[in-house]
Formats: sequence, C-alpha cells, structure tokens
Amino acid sequence: MTVRNQRKMAGIPRGVISRLPVYYRYLSGLSQAQEKISSAELGKALSMTAAQIRSDLSYFGSFGLHGYGYRVDQLKQAIAEILGLDRTYQLVLVGAGNLGRALATYRNFRHRGFIIGAIFDNDPQIIGQELAGVQVQSIDNLEDYLRTNACDIAVICTPREASQAICDRLVGAGVKAIWNFSPIHLQVPDDVIVEHIHLTDSLLQLSFQLRQRSR
Amino acid sequence: MTVRNQRKMAGIPRGVISRLPVYYRYLSGLSQAQEKISSAELGKALSMTAAQIRSDLSYFGSFGLHGYGYRVDQLKQAIAEILGLDRTYQLVLVGAGNLGRALATYRNFRHRGFIIGAIFDNDPQIIGQELAGVQVQSIDNLEDYLRTNACDIAVICTPREASQAICDRLVGAGVKAIWNFSPIHLQVPDDVIVEHIHLTDSLLQLSFQLRQRSR
Repeated sequence: MTVRNQRKMAGIPRGVISRLPVYYRYLSGLSQAQEKISSAELGKALSMTAAQIRSDLSYFGSFGLHGYGYRVDQLKQAIAEILGLDRTYQLVLVGAGNLGRALATYRNFRHRGFIIGAIFDNDPQIIGQELAGVQVQSIDNLEDYLRTNACDIAVICTPREASQAICDRLVGAGVKAIWNFSPIHLQVPDDVIVEHIHLTDSLLQLSFQLRQRSR
Repeated sequence: MTVRNQRKMAGIPRGVISRLPVYYRYLSGLSQAQEKISSAELGKALSMTAAQIRSDLSYFGSFGLHGYGYRVDQLKQAIAEILGLDRTYQLVLVGAGNLGRALATYRNFRHRGFIIGAIFDNDPQIIGQELAGVQVQSIDNLEDYLRTNACDIAVICTPREASQAICDRLVGAGVKAIWNFSPIHLQVPDDVIVEHIHLTDSLLQLSFQLRQRSR
C-alpha cells in the first residue's frame, strides 16, 4: 500500500470498511483464471450498483482502468493489506461447547491466517480433548498461558453468565481484541476492541422483516 | 401495539431497527425484580448515550415517564411485538456439520420461539443421527418435506460450493426467508429475505482494527 493510501485510510467511512470483507470474500471465490472484473459484474454479484462499487474502491487508490474494470489479483492484494491479512494472528478460544467446537474446526479461519493456539474450558469432561489438533486446557491455565504466549485475539464462546468474568481475565492478562459470541454486551476499557456475533440478534432481524411482510 | 405505532413503523431508520434486538436481549437479561430502568442506565450498559436511547425508543410511542425511566416489562413486551416475537417460527436447517450442529443445539433460539422442525444433510454418515431431538434427513427429502410442512425460515450451513444450489431449491419450494451461514452472497428473488452471518467478515473487521492500532 502506498503512503498516500495509508494517510487516506483515516477518513474511510465505516460503511465502506464493513464492505471490504465482502469484496475480499467474493474475489477470493473467483476462478484463478479470471484476470479482471468490472464494477458492473461485482455489483451484480453483490447486489450493489456499479456506481457504489466504484465509489467504495476509489478510497483505496486507482485500481480501476477505464473501460477495463479491475485487475482481480491487484484488487484482492490491496484489500488484503488494508484488512491486515498480510500477517497471521494468534487466537485463544475460551469455551469449547458446541459453538466453540464449530469455530475451532472451521477451516476458513486458518486459511486466512487466524491460528487458534489454545482452547480453554472449565468442564473436566472437555478438558484434555483434542479439537483440530489443539488440546483443550483448564481455564485455570489461562493467565499462565497468556504470560508466555502471544494472543492477538481472544474468542469468547462461554455461556452468558461466565462471559464478563472471562472477558475481565483476558483483558487483565493484556488481550486487546475480543471476538464475542456470548449473548451479552461486554464491558471493556477503551483500548480493547470487541467485535460481537450475536446470533439471536440476526435471527430477530429476520423475524422483524417477516412481520413487516405479513402486514 | 397501537394502530398509530404500526403506521409509524414504516419510517423507522434501519439503524434503530438493528438496535432493537440489542435492547431486547439486554432487558431479557435483567432480574425479574427490576421494574424500571432509566435511559442513562440503559446507555451505560450498552455503551450508548442516554439521548440516543431516548431517541431510538421514541419511535415506538411513549414508554418513558419523565423522571422515572421506562417500565421494563412494558418496554420488553413492546419491542417483542415489534420484532415479531409474539409468535413461533418453524425453521429448517440444511447442513449438519459442526456449525449446523452448534445451531441445532443452541437453546436460545427455541427459547425465543424459533423451532427447528427438520434438519437435512447429504452425508450418509450424518443422516439418521439425532440432534436436539430432531433426526437428520437426507437432502433428497427436502422438497417433500416442504410440501407438507410449514417453514418460515431456512438456515443454510452447507459448504460454499453447495449453498447457492440449496438456496435455489429452498426458494423453489416456497421458502421466503433465509438465514445464511455459508461464506457466499446468495442470489435470491426480491421477495425473499436473506440475513447473512459471515463469520470471517467479522474476524476481518477485527484484523482491520488491529492493523489500524498498530500504526
């Protein structure tokens, strides 16, 4: 990425940033043989207008060639850099219930450079089991582990009641980014980043829309 | 809900609607004993300003009493009605891999009225297994099942390659709402609602923010 682009990034609207993973995912799914793509094609595939695509991508410099479209490899590479995908991330997962297990074994994460280095649980039945090559440890080991191992992102998959306490322990041990799957709003200091996946909220958006339709 | 409120709903900003599940989830987690809550308390718990809370909730009529706050039960009930939670929904789940299993056994959904009536897969090893009391059926039965059973929402947890074809079959069989966990952007007719959970996109938002911090 050029210095100019780095400087420009500060002013990128959140909406544009939220769409970058969508572009990245779509471009990654294209055949290796496809060298270029037009804003019209991208728009059609992603249910957006060609103008919106061009507007979004214009924030990141000029990948587009008039009358040609975008070079797939260049565009993908540039978005990957912006998203921070030019490195790997060490993850720690807390809570090896059904959802935790599903995440631990989800191949897409490792493929993108997100490596689960350790998994913790408090259930003696689960501790010692192996998930995707990682042995589940007792939650009692959490602070010890974090003292001696890097952790870029902690994934919280614990039941609601335990989540805030686990979050506090992670933050206390120096974790600065949390991916939260538990159905509560975690309280964290300002310098900690939290990204929530609230499954039920998403389902409620569906029920809301179904209700609107049935009127 | 009053007729006046119903009419007003058409003009509610999407941002407000997206926050209703957040309010609902938080209110549902409060002790039964708590009768009222102020916009300041709600704001503190949800990292919003009291003014934003009051502004959001003002769209749905006057639940607030000056100098008193909101009555928890009334507010929760009103939001539940708006979100369409005053009924149950029949779900069909396609793809009983790790993520599908986690969803099938996630108690919160049933608790909110989302009932998984059938689960389909194409793997002979998985067909016939029981998940949360539901026996996994062959995907070959999908259309037969949908001819004779209600399905308000179909959940797609299949691998990327299969998702669009499964989506087409569901839509062809009359399904009007899809909850998509597969990492592709599904193409559907205008009258079909799709809500996506793209796990990797959320993780990329984290890596993006970590990258911004490290500058």
